[in-house]
Amino acid sequence: MLENLKQEVLKANLDLVKHNLVVLTWGNASAIDRESGLVVIKPSGVGYDDMKAEDMVVVDLDGNVMEGSLRPSSDTPTHLAIYRHFPEVGGVVHTHSTYATAWAQAGLPIPNIGTTHADTFHRDIPCTREMSSRQISEAYEAATGDIIADAFKGMDPMHTPAVLVRHHGPFTWGRSASDAVHNAVVLEEVAHMASITVALNPNVEMNADLVEKHYERKHGANAYYGQKK
Amino acid sequence: MLENLKQEVLKANLDLVKHNLVVLTWGNASAIDRESGLVVIKPSGVGYDDMKAEDMVVVDLDGNVMEGSLRPSSDTPTHLAIYRHFPEVGGVVHTHSTYATAWAQAGLPIPNIGTTHADTFHRDIPCTREMSSRQISEAYEAATGDIIADAFKGMDPMHTPAVLVRHHGPFTWGRSASDAVHNAVVLEEVAHMASITVALNPNVEMNADLVEKHYERKHGANAYYGQKK
Amino acid sequence: MLENLKQEVLKANLDLVKHNLVVLTWGNASAIDRESGLVVIKPSGVGYDDMKAEDMVVVDLDGNVMEGSLRPSSDTPTHLAIYRHFPEVGGVVHTHSTYATAWAQAGLPIPNIGTTHADTFHRDIPCTREMSSRQISEAYEAATGDIIADAFKGMDPMHTPAVLVRHHGPFTWGRSASDAVHNAVVLEEVAHMASITVALNPNVEMNADLVEKHYERKHGANAYYGQKK
Amino acid sequence: MLENLKQEVLKANLDLVKHNLVVLTWGNASAIDRESGLVVIKPSGVGYDDMKAEDMVVVDLDGNVMEGSLRPSSDTPTHLAIYRHFPEVGGVVHTHSTYATAWAQAGLPIPNIGTTHADTFHRDIPCTREMSSRQISEAYEAATGDIIADAFKGMDPMHTPAVLVRHHGPFTWGRSASDAVHNAVVLEEVAHMASITVALNPNVEMNADLVEKHYERKHGANAYYGQKK
Repeated sequence: MLENLKQEVLKANLDLVKHNLVVLTWGNASAIDRESGLVVIKPSGVGYDDMKAEDMVVVDLDGNVMEGSLRPSSDTPTHLAIYRHFPEVGGVVHTHSTYATAWAQAGLPIPNIGTTHADTFHRDIPCTREMSSRQISEAYEAATGDIIADAFKGMDPMHTPAVLVRHHGPFTWGRSASDAVHNAVVLEEVAHMASITVALNPNVEMNADLVEKHYERKHGANAYYGQKK
Repeated sequence: MLENLKQEVLKANLDLVKHNLVVLTWGNASAIDRESGLVVIKPSGVGYDDMKAEDMVVVDLDGNVMEGSLRPSSDTPTHLAIYRHFPEVGGVVHTHSTYATAWAQAGLPIPNIGTTHADTFHRDIPCTREMSSRQISEAYEAATGDIIADAFKGMDPMHTPAVLVRHHGPFTWGRSASDAVHNAVVLEEVAHMASITVALNPNVEMNADLVEKHYERKHGANAYYGQKK
Repeated sequence: MLENLKQEVLKANLDLVKHNLVVLTWGNASAIDRESGLVVIKPSGVGYDDMKAEDMVVVDLDGNVMEGSLRPSSDTPTHLAIYRHFPEVGGVVHTHSTYATAWAQAGLPIPNIGTTHADTFHRDIPCTREMSSRQISEAYEAATGDIIADAFKGMDPMHTPAVLVRHHGPFTWGRSASDAVHNAVVLEEVAHMASITVALNPNVEMNADLVEKHYERKHGANAYYGQKK
Repeated sequence: MLENLKQEVLKANLDLVKHNLVVLTWGNASAIDRESGLVVIKPSGVGYDDMKAEDMVVVDLDGNVMEGSLRPSSDTPTHLAIYRHFPEVGGVVHTHSTYATAWAQAGLPIPNIGTTHADTFHRDIPCTREMSSRQISEAYEAATGDIIADAFKGMDPMHTPAVLVRHHGPFTWGRSASDAVHNAVVLEEVAHMASITVALNPNVEMNADLVEKHYERKHGANAYYGQKK
């Protein structure tokens, strides 16, 4: 079932390790087959060294395991909420990468103060609001999905494909699992740069026109970055 | 004598190097055989490259060398004090890993401000109090054990398996030497993240319910992280 | 066409990766053949792993592609502006290296506060001024060249061969592409050191005589660093 | 001439690279043969990859080249001043390692605030005073030696075998070139830890008795760290 997608998801998980975004087993990638509504995701708490495509777990959008003998990642409900709320998303990545997680712990959005950020993320990377104690105790992972959706009210999630879950860490997404990995790499780097920048100059801001220019030259109708496709 | 345990302890010491927790020879791991009350520990000031299982030193809980031609680690008395005070501990690790040591030098506990922390450590990582000049001069290593025990009054050491010895550095522990290494890796990462977080937002705190939720989902009676055991 | 220069430019691009100055595809090197006025530059958005000398793009100083089937780097207009404004420049490098980019995002020059800096860069590394919204929308990359030239009014660009483009990142140059790479390595290191230094001591300054001494002993008429040439 | 010493000095220079203390060619090690008063040192501005023992330069304590076709390191006068002022020194190392250099740029001593420091360095690592403009212009490298000697008035240079030359970077020494390399590794690590520590807690100090305890247990008459010799 979904053998190609399993290969893609396996590769995305291994790429997280290759890009130094993972300590121990803290990182997981998934992808969705929109036709069947089935999601392929890393199993929970399993090491990356011997992981095979057939270890990937298949779940439906309600979290029911459809195939696989291992438990899916404990972050599966958040992946699923992202797929349900943002219909254009094809792949999701979650890491505890050092700098993005530090911003999430600080409860602060990562400000869009450089073109490295603006080339990939149109807006500040939002940080979710605090959950209530009731949300935490009653339906924690589902509530995580809801506060992510809230953080994107009035924003296009495909133009700013990342979020910081407060006190937890970053989730990124994209058209595919591989896109989501790419965005996780960019996010960690802009989180690192921004932490140095605000230490040097706490009040820095970037001209909104410059934000538009950089985002548009890569992603707009007349994009001229990269090769013609 | 205790050949399997020596292999485990050797492997734990080498894993400290693999996880980049060791500069020069600053790091040591040990394990205890609770039945005989004997502890296997790294020899003092020896490099990791040529270390063999038979170089490991066997000592009793009073620090008498029972087997081995090399001196045990100069931190042996602290390892032994941890085994004596905390009867569920099976393995102990000491490192001078950069960020955890910096917190120890600062004399500050590492605050529990993220789920990366809460997934492994239930509370703030305590920092021991200053020793008196008399403690330092008369029985330094033994006194280190006592101030560690004091730091855990009213806390379960198996739920927060790490301590910062003030001005010195971190000790971690677990059911086995391998568990203690795992906890040393997590500790260094949460120490790093916390140092960035407090620079971004000095007043950050985490909701106590969120702490409980994350600790419980990994370690509680109804834990659902990782695979069934 | 310009086969040797293509080999040099390929090597310079690969050296950026070797020196850890590049994340994903964010970095590009070029060189100019002053006789023909032709510039060889990396293609846009192409990975480094399979890049060959024949993939390099040849453009004239107005940006017309003279040879090559791929689009040139989207930063080509800035490279060209540097060649036009600074006639002694033979090679240009652009990266998003972490610390230099953080200074650019902060909108601050990198102060000359150590001999590591003064050995290679005679003055503070200037940071360009903010562009107007009109400059951004009408001729962004060309305007980048103009504000770089402005930043060097009264300074010799060959004595301080680097600039921070505000909110974007560093450009470095030299007699050749390989010189420009060397200067990009030094720049990132002095940017890193300066960020730590100002955190330790925000008001530090270096004696102007010491600046002269170090710059002169490496680059002056009586230079005595390195081997006789 | 001095073939064994050349091998030792070559190895010491390569070990600086192995321990990540060197960017480009910024680092040099030397050793002295006290009987003949001859010093073996790295040639200036030469890469480490192809360096051979026979490339090492032999100079006397006045800086006259006694053997070797290459120029000695431009830092040779400082190495020589250290050998002249401190008669027990057998080897000297100079690097521009990132954190130690940042403290030197900040003009601040590295405070002895942890046992990692106290195990190797008895006191704060001193930072030399500013040189006068006259010293800089007339006899820069020799004056560097003099201000180092001044910084150690009332201190034993063998108990605190390192100094920060203001605005420049660290020099370390020891009984041999290999000892000096070891001390350079420790210095960079304590410089790193101290920079994090003072950011977390600017007012930290360490009990003087604890300083003595750690220094004595490794270096005192009754040292009990490491194996018996």
